[in-house]
Amino acid sequence: MSSAPISRFDLPKLADLPSDVRERIEAVQEKSGFVPNVFLVLARRPDEFRAFFSHHDALMEKDSGLSKAEREMIVVATSSANACQYCVVAHGAILRIRAKNPLLADQIAVNYLKADITPRQKAMLDFAMQVALESGTVEQEDLDALAEHGFSEDDVWDIGAIAAFFAMSNRLANLTAMRPNDEFYAMGRS
Amino acid sequence: MSSAPISRFDLPKLADLPSDVRERIEAVQEKSGFVPNVFLVLARRPDEFRAFFSHHDALMEKDSGLSKAEREMIVVATSSANACQYCVVAHGAILRIRAKNPLLADQIAVNYLKADITPRQKAMLDFAMQVALESGTVEQEDLDALAEHGFSEDDVWDIGAIAAFFAMSNRLANLTAMRPNDEFYAMGRS
Amino acid sequence: MSSAPISRFDLPKLADLPSDVRERIEAVQEKSGFVPNVFLVLARRPDEFRAFFSHHDALMEKDSGLSKAEREMIVVATSSANACQYCVVAHGAILRIRAKNPLLADQIAVNYLKADITPRQKAMLDFAMQVALESGTVEQEDLDALAEHGFSEDDVWDIGAIAAFFAMSNRLANLTAMRPNDEFYAMGRS
Amino acid sequence: MSSAPISRFDLPKLADLPSDVRERIEAVQEKSGFVPNVFLVLARRPDEFRAFFSHHDALMEKDSGLSKAEREMIVVATSSANACQYCVVAHGAILRIRAKNPLLADQIAVNYLKADITPRQKAMLDFAMQVALESGTVEQEDLDALAEHGFSEDDVWDIGAIAAFFAMSNRLANLTAMRPNDEFYAMGRS
Amino acid sequence: MSSAPISRFDLPKLADLPSDVRERIEAVQEKSGFVPNVFLVLARRPDEFRAFFSHHDALMEKDSGLSKAEREMIVVATSSANACQYCVVAHGAILRIRAKNPLLADQIAVNYLKADITPRQKAMLDFAMQVALESGTVEQEDLDALAEHGFSEDDVWDIGAIAAFFAMSNRLANLTAMRPNDEFYAMGRS
Amino acid sequence: MSSAPISRFDLPKLADLPSDVRERIEAVQEKSGFVPNVFLVLARRPDEFRAFFSHHDALMEKDSGLSKAEREMIVVATSSANACQYCVVAHGAILRIRAKNPLLADQIAVNYLKADITPRQKAMLDFAMQVALESGTVEQEDLDALAEHGFSEDDVWDIGAIAAFFAMSNRLANLTAMRPNDEFYAMGRS
Repeated sequence: MSSAPISRFDLPKLADLPSDVRERIEAVQEKSGFVPNVFLVLARRPDEFRAFFSHHDALMEKDSGLSKAEREMIVVATSSANACQYCVVAHGAILRIRAKNPLLADQIAVNYLKADITPRQKAMLDFAMQVALESGTVEQEDLDALAEHGFSEDDVWDIGAIAAFFAMSNRLANLTAMRPNDEFYAMGRS
Repeated sequence: MSSAPISRFDLPKLADLPSDVRERIEAVQEKSGFVPNVFLVLARRPDEFRAFFSHHDALMEKDSGLSKAEREMIVVATSSANACQYCVVAHGAILRIRAKNPLLADQIAVNYLKADITPRQKAMLDFAMQVALESGTVEQEDLDALAEHGFSEDDVWDIGAIAAFFAMSNRLANLTAMRPNDEFYAMGRS
Repeated sequence: MSSAPISRFDLPKLADLPSDVRERIEAVQEKSGFVPNVFLVLARRPDEFRAFFSHHDALMEKDSGLSKAEREMIVVATSSANACQYCVVAHGAILRIRAKNPLLADQIAVNYLKADITPRQKAMLDFAMQVALESGTVEQEDLDALAEHGFSEDDVWDIGAIAAFFAMSNRLANLTAMRPNDEFYAMGRS
Repeated sequence: MSSAPISRFDLPKLADLPSDVRERIEAVQEKSGFVPNVFLVLARRPDEFRAFFSHHDALMEKDSGLSKAEREMIVVATSSANACQYCVVAHGAILRIRAKNPLLADQIAVNYLKADITPRQKAMLDFAMQVALESGTVEQEDLDALAEHGFSEDDVWDIGAIAAFFAMSNRLANLTAMRPNDEFYAMGRS
Repeated sequence: MSSAPISRFDLPKLADLPSDVRERIEAVQEKSGFVPNVFLVLARRPDEFRAFFSHHDALMEKDSGLSKAEREMIVVATSSANACQYCVVAHGAILRIRAKNPLLADQIAVNYLKADITPRQKAMLDFAMQVALESGTVEQEDLDALAEHGFSEDDVWDIGAIAAFFAMSNRLANLTAMRPNDEFYAMGRS
Repeated sequence: MSSAPISRFDLPKLADLPSDVRERIEAVQEKSGFVPNVFLVLARRPDEFRAFFSHHDALMEKDSGLSKAEREMIVVATSSANACQYCVVAHGAILRIRAKNPLLADQIAVNYLKADITPRQKAMLDFAMQVALESGTVEQEDLDALAEHGFSEDDVWDIGAIAAFFAMSNRLANLTAMRPNDEFYAMGRS
């Protein structure tokens, strides 16, 4: 199984990559013990690779009114709605680790309405799903509903922008038939 | 009308922006004669601004097997499916100019199946719409259908990646209630 | 482009048409400077032609609690939902002229929720879209919501009946692949 | 039950109606033994009444390559898809009578794919449903599929135009909460 | 017509059936004067037959806070939404008989929102349709809405469980192309 | 977390249950080391409990042309489409064990089109999903497509009947807000 292709598209050779791209890949390898396939698949296009991960980090790694676990909840819920195997499996693993909860990712992937989350987190996911699935219907009253749960204007931007970024990410993964690394499935389960 | 807000979110002051962001905005102002609102709305978050426009340019401005007009067709068709006013109006203008055709953008926005395009371009838009609307169903046979129209592997990536990028862009515009500049509506119509 | 077919079906010869049908066509030609293609396409069936335009005029030309511009808003919004190129382009032109507003038609065609309209007009379009897209769900409370915006019983009939009439009109245009005249695209834009 | 309202809108008094409208109503009363409610509900607007029934008769009563029973099949199938109680019940009765078949209307209303019809009639209903539900997707190849079953260009127009006319009719009935006369339910069942 | 096949699958011979299955079939024949096809079609699998009818009777025949007619309303409404010809026709007949109302079944099959039912029954069908069509969205507030109409916890279970059982039943009927007996169509109409 | 309620409905006391129901529960406890919540939730209604598990065992435990792992694939794929948390989590665990594959359940839950399955198994799941989501469209040609992959008439029944049974099961779980036991999440992952 581990020899299954990780992309429908040809992969670049590591040696041929620009040094900054190769260094980013080597850094994640060192940190995680393996290279998540998204790095190898997107490296085919270095400029797009740089923009993608820079955008990802700006939304997912910096300080925010949302915890890192909450941001991963948004990724898992919307990626499941988009039938994106890579993102649900990989970010499900990250969510388990960041929330220190082995159940939450699977609960949210199947039906976030029945997950072990707070009403505030449910409101967050309601809005993220609206942005993911029917963003044209977003009206001011939808943002007001978030404010009632204490979300600031910047928090609302974060929720919507993460749903928007993974709308792109899910489509790239589905376009390329990006395969989740086997390592992700069992991470954070015990 | 020109005094209507261009975003639901507070806008940054130009003077407060990092110099590279401000310079990009000034450059587009000089080139176009006005600042498309997307630059002002996204400048609220400089890191995301940089990644967004860098990603945009990598897909829309570089050499490709798709003409620039064809790439704009993908933007107009998928943005209309996502009910994104900003992108249909702004990129409709760009499409009219790049295709030197005053009718094509409106035709594609309403129903690309009845637009004045070639069978190859129709196949391109069929795939772009699949990526935009149900990317989880993309299978190898969908890519093979594009190959029959002469699209290379890199062309397929371009089609899918543009649909994916504007899946994000449309959601950001709908999140922020981004208003198209009045200037776009009449551009390229004569 | 102007030599593209205007219908999938054979067109009748003007000389062969019943005189009342021909006279109506000549009258519109004189008034508008060109013959909108809907007249030529539907003339294939004189009885249906007469009923169609008589119904159209009863709804769109007579006095009503809705302004003529408001009635065109209903046409543009619902025709866009039905992916009807002819009606969006032709009635978009009429809306620009009747509303003396070069932006409104494009705004409504893409997403009426973000158009420069009043709350009363938004309620009108909400109901028109419900009739257009899921009329089986219309209940008394939907009509009551219109009454709260000051719409009379006759206004409600007008809104619903216009949405219903263009449900037919959109389907006839899509059936026949009715092509919008080139003239419509630029009308009312300056 | 027979005292339930037949419309959400006020009904005109027969005595106040223009004589041609009143005469049409009296004629149908004489012929059928009762007045189908659609005549009373639409008489509120005499001009629309005249256009509606003139259009109806042009499609449903004249000679055509489709039998009268086949035309009623189109009405029942598409009206059911539009959740239009009046049209399914009233035209179900007419279909039973015209087809001399007490089962066909109920079969088609629930699922025409499993009705006792010929492959040619199934192709007819496939196309009628496409026009009713997603007319924007109609392409030349859909018409070609009908030609393979022996349908002429005029037959195709009839199929599509009947589906289009009842798209309007269904919406008017749902708008007005038009109630089917009790008489229709049992007609043609033995 | 009566010689049309009643299932896509081969039918077992009555003589080959286990005696309890055969006896159940003979009992219903004696009681109704004919054998509803569902008994013959499902007898192909005796264990599944036994479980199916035992489950059916537990929900539809025992005492409950819902009348037997109300339970049949649920069957007709949800089976119509699932395009199940057998269940709409057969249970439509039973509903007519149990409600002593010749109109109700057809009204509910086409659009229960416009049927001659009480507000309490409409709330019951709203919930049944939610369970039938999007059960993943059921939340506590949906059950609370039923409680406001006086439904007990056991009534709610009945509504949901009947919708769930016929979700299975409709799919079995559609899988097997189960044909409604001709007898059902006219039952209970006078 | 383990103290979260396992049903929206009151649970019966074990001591109050009929002895056959209690014995079935004690047997599964002995075999599995814990009682899957579905047994406790459904025990509220002993007759329905008996029919449900008898039906379940007839489809899932007996000999069949489908392997036990293949039958669980059908459960996981269709339960995910129905947003049924209990069934995806519980049967995901069983699938991992029966297929001796720690990845397959998560792959299928998110997008079976990209799972590590054979073309024959993909055809099986295509049909199961059609039965689960739009059974009214099943036609003979859909069964013929299965025959081409070597499925017998009895295999087709099994595929469709399992999809049908879990259509019921998913709705019961969503009705009751049935909570998956914590034990399921990690089972079969190493």
